[in-house]
Amino acid sequence: MYEKINLDQLHNSGVRVVDLRSDTVSKPTPEMREAMYRAPVGDDVYGEDPTVAELERRAAEILEKEEAIFVASGTMANLIAIMVHCNQRGSEIISGDHGHTFKFEQGGTAQIAGVHTAVIKNNEDGTFSIEDLRKKIRKNPDFHEPISSLIIVENTHNLCGGKVLPLEWLEKVHNLAEEHHLPVHMDGARMMNAAVYLKVPPSRIVKDVDSVCFCLSKGLGCPVGAILAGTSTFIDKARRVRKALGGGWRQAGIIAAAGLVALDTMIERLQEDHDHAYQIAKAIYAMHSTNFKVDLQTVQTNIVLMYFDKTKITVQDLQRRLQTVLKTDRVKCSVRSMSLNHDCVRFTLYWGISDEDVTVACEKIQLVIREYDELLKGY
Amino acid sequence: MYEKINLDQLHNSGVRVVDLRSDTVSKPTPEMREAMYRAPVGDDVYGEDPTVAELERRAAEILEKEEAIFVASGTMANLIAIMVHCNQRGSEIISGDHGHTFKFEQGGTAQIAGVHTAVIKNNEDGTFSIEDLRKKIRKNPDFHEPISSLIIVENTHNLCGGKVLPLEWLEKVHNLAEEHHLPVHMDGARMMNAAVYLKVPPSRIVKDVDSVCFCLSKGLGCPVGAILAGTSTFIDKARRVRKALGGGWRQAGIIAAAGLVALDTMIERLQEDHDHAYQIAKAIYAMHSTNFKVDLQTVQTNIVLMYFDKTKITVQDLQRRLQTVLKTDRVKCSVRSMSLNHDCVRFTLYWGISDEDVTVACEKIQLVIREYDELLKGY
Amino acid sequence: MYEKINLDQLHNSGVRVVDLRSDTVSKPTPEMREAMYRAPVGDDVYGEDPTVAELERRAAEILEKEEAIFVASGTMANLIAIMVHCNQRGSEIISGDHGHTFKFEQGGTAQIAGVHTAVIKNNEDGTFSIEDLRKKIRKNPDFHEPISSLIIVENTHNLCGGKVLPLEWLEKVHNLAEEHHLPVHMDGARMMNAAVYLKVPPSRIVKDVDSVCFCLSKGLGCPVGAILAGTSTFIDKARRVRKALGGGWRQAGIIAAAGLVALDTMIERLQEDHDHAYQIAKAIYAMHSTNFKVDLQTVQTNIVLMYFDKTKITVQDLQRRLQTVLKTDRVKCSVRSMSLNHDCVRFTLYWGISDEDVTVACEKIQLVIREYDELLKGY
Amino acid sequence: MYEKINLDQLHNSGVRVVDLRSDTVSKPTPEMREAMYRAPVGDDVYGEDPTVAELERRAAEILEKEEAIFVASGTMANLIAIMVHCNQRGSEIISGDHGHTFKFEQGGTAQIAGVHTAVIKNNEDGTFSIEDLRKKIRKNPDFHEPISSLIIVENTHNLCGGKVLPLEWLEKVHNLAEEHHLPVHMDGARMMNAAVYLKVPPSRIVKDVDSVCFCLSKGLGCPVGAILAGTSTFIDKARRVRKALGGGWRQAGIIAAAGLVALDTMIERLQEDHDHAYQIAKAIYAMHSTNFKVDLQTVQTNIVLMYFDKTKITVQDLQRRLQTVLKTDRVKCSVRSMSLNHDCVRFTLYWGISDEDVTVACEKIQLVIREYDELLKGY
Repeated sequence: MYEKINLDQLHNSGVRVVDLRSDTVSKPTPEMREAMYRAPVGDDVYGEDPTVAELERRAAEILEKEEAIFVASGTMANLIAIMVHCNQRGSEIISGDHGHTFKFEQGGTAQIAGVHTAVIKNNEDGTFSIEDLRKKIRKNPDFHEPISSLIIVENTHNLCGGKVLPLEWLEKVHNLAEEHHLPVHMDGARMMNAAVYLKVPPSRIVKDVDSVCFCLSKGLGCPVGAILAGTSTFIDKARRVRKALGGGWRQAGIIAAAGLVALDTMIERLQEDHDHAYQIAKAIYAMHSTNFKVDLQTVQTNIVLMYFDKTKITVQDLQRRLQTVLKTDRVKCSVRSMSLNHDCVRFTLYWGISDEDVTVACEKIQLVIREYDELLKGY
Repeated sequence: MYEKINLDQLHNSGVRVVDLRSDTVSKPTPEMREAMYRAPVGDDVYGEDPTVAELERRAAEILEKEEAIFVASGTMANLIAIMVHCNQRGSEIISGDHGHTFKFEQGGTAQIAGVHTAVIKNNEDGTFSIEDLRKKIRKNPDFHEPISSLIIVENTHNLCGGKVLPLEWLEKVHNLAEEHHLPVHMDGARMMNAAVYLKVPPSRIVKDVDSVCFCLSKGLGCPVGAILAGTSTFIDKARRVRKALGGGWRQAGIIAAAGLVALDTMIERLQEDHDHAYQIAKAIYAMHSTNFKVDLQTVQTNIVLMYFDKTKITVQDLQRRLQTVLKTDRVKCSVRSMSLNHDCVRFTLYWGISDEDVTVACEKIQLVIREYDELLKGY
Repeated sequence: MYEKINLDQLHNSGVRVVDLRSDTVSKPTPEMREAMYRAPVGDDVYGEDPTVAELERRAAEILEKEEAIFVASGTMANLIAIMVHCNQRGSEIISGDHGHTFKFEQGGTAQIAGVHTAVIKNNEDGTFSIEDLRKKIRKNPDFHEPISSLIIVENTHNLCGGKVLPLEWLEKVHNLAEEHHLPVHMDGARMMNAAVYLKVPPSRIVKDVDSVCFCLSKGLGCPVGAILAGTSTFIDKARRVRKALGGGWRQAGIIAAAGLVALDTMIERLQEDHDHAYQIAKAIYAMHSTNFKVDLQTVQTNIVLMYFDKTKITVQDLQRRLQTVLKTDRVKCSVRSMSLNHDCVRFTLYWGISDEDVTVACEKIQLVIREYDELLKGY
Repeated sequence: MYEKINLDQLHNSGVRVVDLRSDTVSKPTPEMREAMYRAPVGDDVYGEDPTVAELERRAAEILEKEEAIFVASGTMANLIAIMVHCNQRGSEIISGDHGHTFKFEQGGTAQIAGVHTAVIKNNEDGTFSIEDLRKKIRKNPDFHEPISSLIIVENTHNLCGGKVLPLEWLEKVHNLAEEHHLPVHMDGARMMNAAVYLKVPPSRIVKDVDSVCFCLSKGLGCPVGAILAGTSTFIDKARRVRKALGGGWRQAGIIAAAGLVALDTMIERLQEDHDHAYQIAKAIYAMHSTNFKVDLQTVQTNIVLMYFDKTKITVQDLQRRLQTVLKTDRVKCSVRSMSLNHDCVRFTLYWGISDEDVTVACEKIQLVIREYDELLKGY
């Protein structure tokens, strides 16, 4: 998905490295370091870590869910949610075909949880058709069919470029789910970005889902961890599943402390990342390139997808050019990106990427676009 | 999928019942009864049933595969194939989205086998895009991805109306699979219908796949069982998996005897079912109904899909009307059908449905079409 | 477990082959052949096979359980029972350490059903300590523990030499299970032998268990199949699980017909097998061999375990000698046996082994014992 | 397993609380806090966290294994090891019946990994009979049997009171395993205690096993985490499985930093805990109580098992008395303990329990013993 480079060497050579591969590479803030240093801890497997308890309480409060649990990763949070909601044999999830749990969690739904997935084509905005959803819900499934047990939505939607799910759409999903007594889980790895984009409290984003997870280690900047929230009964069961997966951790208060700082200081701040993303998108747009496209309309949060014609440009070449600084290059900047498909690269913004980083990265991206446009002229 | 009716009552009342729900309802021929009566048997779990051994040998010979195993059902054959091909953790199948293993085997791929499925949109003819297939094959999957381990094709394709996969397409799938060292499994529940349609030997149909199963209990008329064939190594492993699933059976030679009769006498005969199916399709077509459609081009084997506008007609009403005989009805015939979707009913032909049955069933179907057309005139 | 021999060659050479490996090798009676020939059938997956329905009704009636289901094997019956009783994640079975489901069903409990097993040492009579059972039941299991969900008993107990579980012991298991709201499943592959031994109706044997399976293909002589019985709710769920495993079979009435004959004619008849077994045990006992032992007390049903000192005699040699006829042998008989351990061989009786077979087999076994005793004299 | 108490209230009331429930409640040392504060970090999912990399390198070096991986818990380490070693369907582990993975990891071997377990009776010293092990290894398993795929040993052995496995025994296990091409995994949660007890380098302890895990969060005092080590191939696969379980963590260097401190400063120090444990054992022994026993011989590491007659004393009462301070009590100390069985309590020592804590705890334990002895006199 990206090439390894020797960062130290680049830094030493006076090159500015702007790593836009993923917000997962964000590093803890000084305030988080401080909080972790001082965190009171206990054995969380015995439910005795005060910092974990406080983080779980605060997270539940913010989301207006009954309870929350602190786990090692978003993948673990999703897997636990699936295992709890789909507790009976022969369960089936309904998911968009671009869903992260469906495509990028190593098939854990089937591999670990033994749960089948029915897929619906995702729209470009991360939603899917409510009519298609209705069709995928198996009413009175006979012996040939698995049992519809869970609907998963993703917000913001990673593969759809960080798109925010419309609140009205979530309500429709909820209503249909309720009609069929189906729970809805939100893979909300970046749901705080959605809240900031929509200028609503986080609880509004998750009002229409039964369970939700969000990552502390992405835009919120924490070193490790994710929150899974839902009803008390759900979280009780989640604690059991977490232990079975080996996710029980002892003095986890150390890292939970960073989570508390994140809830206090990092949510509003996501606006910066959105602004930075938009700045990059505009820089690409401003080139009016025949080879590179960006859809300004859809750059809502901290992700920019830059599309290109894959018959002319290979993603590996493009990524390599973006991160290489040639002697003749005017801009001394190495921009790292992620490729999720063969026809686009993803730039993701997060805390630690400064205004200046963005400005220089824009110049570098424009330089590369210009170079390709010249090269491919008349092609 | 269909309503239960009291057949005895209908028969007694002089009504002809033509049961076109599925070829699975076919009953053994007298010759099969005779063969089962006389079959030499032994303990097949110990590999000592001579009739089973002969059936497995003959099936492998006909398919030109190294070995074959006799199992209780097509579902079991597919499940075993999947468990053998996908023996490592984190495996992924690539399948068409209308595939029977994907939609109608209770999610056993995930539930029992722990295998994830990547899906490709099926074309109307049961194939899928080779280009899409290429995209779904995960090359050098990283930790986020399951491991592409098996491609499944279905022939004839049930949900696509018994459509026969083109041989050239199968070759393309094979070539791409080989390029990526992936095995191909054919869910060939009705592959003998494909062979008859294409007028080629069965072995030609399965030349490009590594393993194949076909049902003895559908068009071939046997009471119970399916054949799974592949390399010797594959079948060795299949025997182990079959035992784990509880599919080891003792003096299975009794039912295997029917299988031998089927291989001798029932394959060529499938042409009759195809002719019957086409006769029904033409009868529907001849009505030039505004409400009911059939695509004559695509009625290739023993299945007819009759489409209708689901906003005007509910499938339940239609099925009920087809199987009910009103006092005023000119045609005293009850036609039973299967609904797999909300906008069509399926008629399936098999041994035991006579020429006369088909003639009368056509009249009944036309009666119902005419009735609906009048009713919905100006609607 | 046994060596393959060329039976035809032996038969042709005038040698009497008495195959005492297992009652699974029993072949259908002429009456069964007749019944199978004439059986009315339908599609059992649609619940329309009248012979299967009748077999299931009759089996439930005999066992005084609400409903029953006809499946392909005892292994499948046990696996289904486990999957239905242990429907939640993290379930645990409690089983004797010599239990067939624990030792000899390929670990399907874990492999297919994902269920853990807590084991209790089996007593020599197939029971286990009620006190140990009490200890193994996890009360209020915390996050470290699986959830006790099912107790399995085996009757008659195969590895314990066909021993019949005492009714009072079953009652104690039941009472303890009830106290902890745990279901009890009886792997009753040979439970009909237990009923005949205790001279009570089969229903009495299973009074204290929630579900039970018995094999039609062992002492009852049917070619294929087993019955699983329990409450209606349990059997409803069992039908679903059977389909997922690929155990749904179409015109299974053919083989169910043999089952009906077995229920009518083969249960009482098991006494013959018990008499034959005892006759063999007495023949061994009568030798007062220093090298071979049998415990007459414990030969209750159709199984005889002949023990020997494994430091002097290897089981392979013994089995080979029993089935070989030397030119100089007075007795022209080949006796086939099963080895389940290194220090004993198992002889199993069933329909098809005649009085004369037993008489000659006794002579052969005595011949072999005498030979070994002479050989090992002073050893 | 223990009762929740209000620690703050106790502390405030001048009572000394000595929490001997488990070494998992140990808190990070100041040096660890410091190291975590300063730790350089990166995204470990991308293999870019320098502190994690260093910890893994150091751990592998100390154990003399090719590579190591840092995971969230000992349970996760064991589960991953099992999933990697038992990669084929129908695998079986061989384990002692008191093994932690068998009894106390929620049956994850079956539930998550789908692996069956064959059990051998553990001796009191944590070993099991090599002869029994030989019997449990299935040679050429037929279709009825799972495939022996892994032997698990536990060192030090928790349920056996922290007993250290003799090196010669480990060698015998290794030799037998090698003969049958079976890998051996050591659940070495407390293996560093074994190394300190035997006065050998840690690598000597694990010389005879293919993979090993040890906990950083027990006696070594780290807040979170465990190490799993083995060959490079093994660890490569382990990384994949860890991700599937949701155990991939981003800037895990924060907590890995504590691990590095532990490897430097906390291993030798375990001797203190052993001394403390022995001091407690001697205090119990010195009472020559008729009701409470300790076996001085077997107190080898940081665990003391105090046995009592469960017909006279309930473990709940005893634990409550140990942690309660009555007004009339001379010793103002609350001792917390763990009960793993009905006839003993476990005291576990770790960093943070001072000499004075131990002295006072001994007095309290003696007080309670004396009280019971008087109470039960003549009983």
